[in-house]
Amino acid sequence: MNSSIEHKEKTIFAERMNNIPRSFIREILKVTAQPDIISFAGGLPNPLSFPAKEIREATLSLLTEESSSVLQYAVSEGYLPLREFLAKRYTDQGIPVSPDEILITNGSQQGLDLCGKIFLDKGDRVLLESPSYLGAIQAFSAYQPEFHSVTLQPDGVDTTELSEILWEHEIKLFYGIPNFQNPTGISYSEEKRKKTAELLQQHATIFIEDDPYGEIRFSGQHLPPIKKFLPDQTILLGSFSKTIAPGLRMGWVVAKKEIIEKMIVAKQACDLHSNFLSQRIIHRLLSEHDMEWHILKITQLYSKQKDFMIDMIRKYFPEEIQYTNPEGGMFIWLTLPLYMDAYELLEEASKQKIAFVPGQTFFLNGKGHNTIRLNFTNSGETEMEAGISKLGRLFYRKMVEV
Amino acid sequence: MNSSIEHKEKTIFAERMNNIPRSFIREILKVTAQPDIISFAGGLPNPLSFPAKEIREATLSLLTEESSSVLQYAVSEGYLPLREFLAKRYTDQGIPVSPDEILITNGSQQGLDLCGKIFLDKGDRVLLESPSYLGAIQAFSAYQPEFHSVTLQPDGVDTTELSEILWEHEIKLFYGIPNFQNPTGISYSEEKRKKTAELLQQHATIFIEDDPYGEIRFSGQHLPPIKKFLPDQTILLGSFSKTIAPGLRMGWVVAKKEIIEKMIVAKQACDLHSNFLSQRIIHRLLSEHDMEWHILKITQLYSKQKDFMIDMIRKYFPEEIQYTNPEGGMFIWLTLPLYMDAYELLEEASKQKIAFVPGQTFFLNGKGHNTIRLNFTNSGETEMEAGISKLGRLFYRKMVEV
Repeated sequence: MNSSIEHKEKTIFAERMNNIPRSFIREILKVTAQPDIISFAGGLPNPLSFPAKEIREATLSLLTEESSSVLQYAVSEGYLPLREFLAKRYTDQGIPVSPDEILITNGSQQGLDLCGKIFLDKGDRVLLESPSYLGAIQAFSAYQPEFHSVTLQPDGVDTTELSEILWEHEIKLFYGIPNFQNPTGISYSEEKRKKTAELLQQHATIFIEDDPYGEIRFSGQHLPPIKKFLPDQTILLGSFSKTIAPGLRMGWVVAKKEIIEKMIVAKQACDLHSNFLSQRIIHRLLSEHDMEWHILKITQLYSKQKDFMIDMIRKYFPEEIQYTNPEGGMFIWLTLPLYMDAYELLEEASKQKIAFVPGQTFFLNGKGHNTIRLNFTNSGETEMEAGISKLGRLFYRKMVEV
Repeated sequence: MNSSIEHKEKTIFAERMNNIPRSFIREILKVTAQPDIISFAGGLPNPLSFPAKEIREATLSLLTEESSSVLQYAVSEGYLPLREFLAKRYTDQGIPVSPDEILITNGSQQGLDLCGKIFLDKGDRVLLESPSYLGAIQAFSAYQPEFHSVTLQPDGVDTTELSEILWEHEIKLFYGIPNFQNPTGISYSEEKRKKTAELLQQHATIFIEDDPYGEIRFSGQHLPPIKKFLPDQTILLGSFSKTIAPGLRMGWVVAKKEIIEKMIVAKQACDLHSNFLSQRIIHRLLSEHDMEWHILKITQLYSKQKDFMIDMIRKYFPEEIQYTNPEGGMFIWLTLPLYMDAYELLEEASKQKIAFVPGQTFFLNGKGHNTIRLNFTNSGETEMEAGISKLGRLFYRKMVEV
């Protein structure tokens, strides 16, 4: 009896469930929740950056004055004054956006799912940077596309390779993170932004521009989003997870009205609308406080943490370990000698209560066995020095073993 | 130029986007948000039922004592103590459930989307009650199933017809609302619950048991969920929207662990996890307050509103108008003489600033042109009498016109 039930269960699920990879990072988060672990694994913002007091005050007054409305069902597209705020902010930055070109989502992750839902038929071609954000691979996988990937260079995507791929294959969506990419920390130069836009325009390929870290810049000049050079074909995803708090799960999509209209229908089918209390809290925060000042504080905090980690890497890692030195965001990317294997290293590191993400997780095709993603926003200096020095000793030991 | 872009847009979207109906109800909600409209259209809880003070206190203390954790990223399956609370509550009610058989979702609407995502390949057969909840039709449509429907009788689904359909077609999922159905207000008798379970078991059909209203019972005996008679094949969806507040967008799924595991992967791809602050607020509410007492107050409020609407219907409607008299929930269902058309009536009613949902919206196949769904939880007695009496006059006028 039992075995027939077993058999039934193996076949009852949809075909797409064979395609969605389970997130290694979400799994490792459970391990790293233990307090004695030094974790460079997650992409967690530093809780010191949460505007808890401001959120508390906003919540208190909303629930005192407007509880009937903030606790009630709301429209699927999101709270209009919040969309107006975001539209004005883009417009002030030289990217003209109207409120009906914005949809409020549950973090930018839902933006990715909605892009998959409205655009992808089975077998449609999706192009990713190599390596790419695992959550995007998961979101798109559910719609069973054919994935392609294009090499990421220190100044952005390899545009020669991009051009070849666009000619060879009919690519429907290209997904990229031009600012302080997850996992590598790499940013596109202005030239690469323009060239990417030009190529995508020629081939009528939609660009999904994920920008959760764009506001967290430590050095260098702010660069315009690719949407500026490719306004009609770009879907820009934003998030409050890094500038306010990820637990509120709040982000947004910017796209042409015709695309947003389709997304609203898809959003209705997914969950009617995003948490309305949190939308109202965030709007209150943005209108009553100087958020630019708050973002500046976060940037200074993370910049200091990044500098400290780079110092520790220089102090404790062998010269053979290459690392990126990002101008913003939350991650440093290590490239180890080819004979090292990051999964093997993780096994040894975790015995010493240190965690990181092996870079292979971010590749589609098993590449990157000798790469590692390190997060620098979620550990203090003492832990960071202890963790990096132990990792350094591990690397030296591996070099001796060869 | 412009026309070629236009052309491109028409073909760029996924095939599934032709299938998802836009929600008439969500559209009409925008109209009924005007303060001078008497609306029987939405399914909005009465704001008097929101525990605003308790939510405010819970938020205040969470954001004072635990802001680092409540504002941070969290696990995809949902806050463990909240899942433990729900598991214990079911177990106490004679439905043994463990915490790892529960997933926290963005309202029960997300539960529907996740069911579609993990189970449905294109062309799989989904059976719905006729009429059915529009949000479920939307959620499943995105996965391009073949829909079938089975007649709803005053004591639940027509089990003879159900049996025939299950023999004739290989039905993968059957979706139903056994308590105070939306839109009809109908509940399954205990006998029909058992018979439905028996038939579904024979055919290994998965039952999606949507139960957002089960706790809002005015009269009659509480009946066990169908899950009790079909534990392995039933996916039970619950919601805090009607007992706490819909703006928090919080619900849950109960299913076998193997199914929940798949849903967690799908949930990661959708939005990583549900709003964590709201999960913590709800858990705090449930553990510090007597929620049974709160639910009793809501039940009394809605029971009184339902009784009043029934009184007004008896006073103002012609005898030819049939109506359900539900034992719980939020809706009354009208069946008009066949020569009346609800959309036509809505046009005239809206000129008089009265709104309702034409029942046809809830049918797959254009049936039900002479049916209407009335919501009784969101209007006061004065408005209700004014609205029902005007509707009554409209019906009388139609009868004279024939």
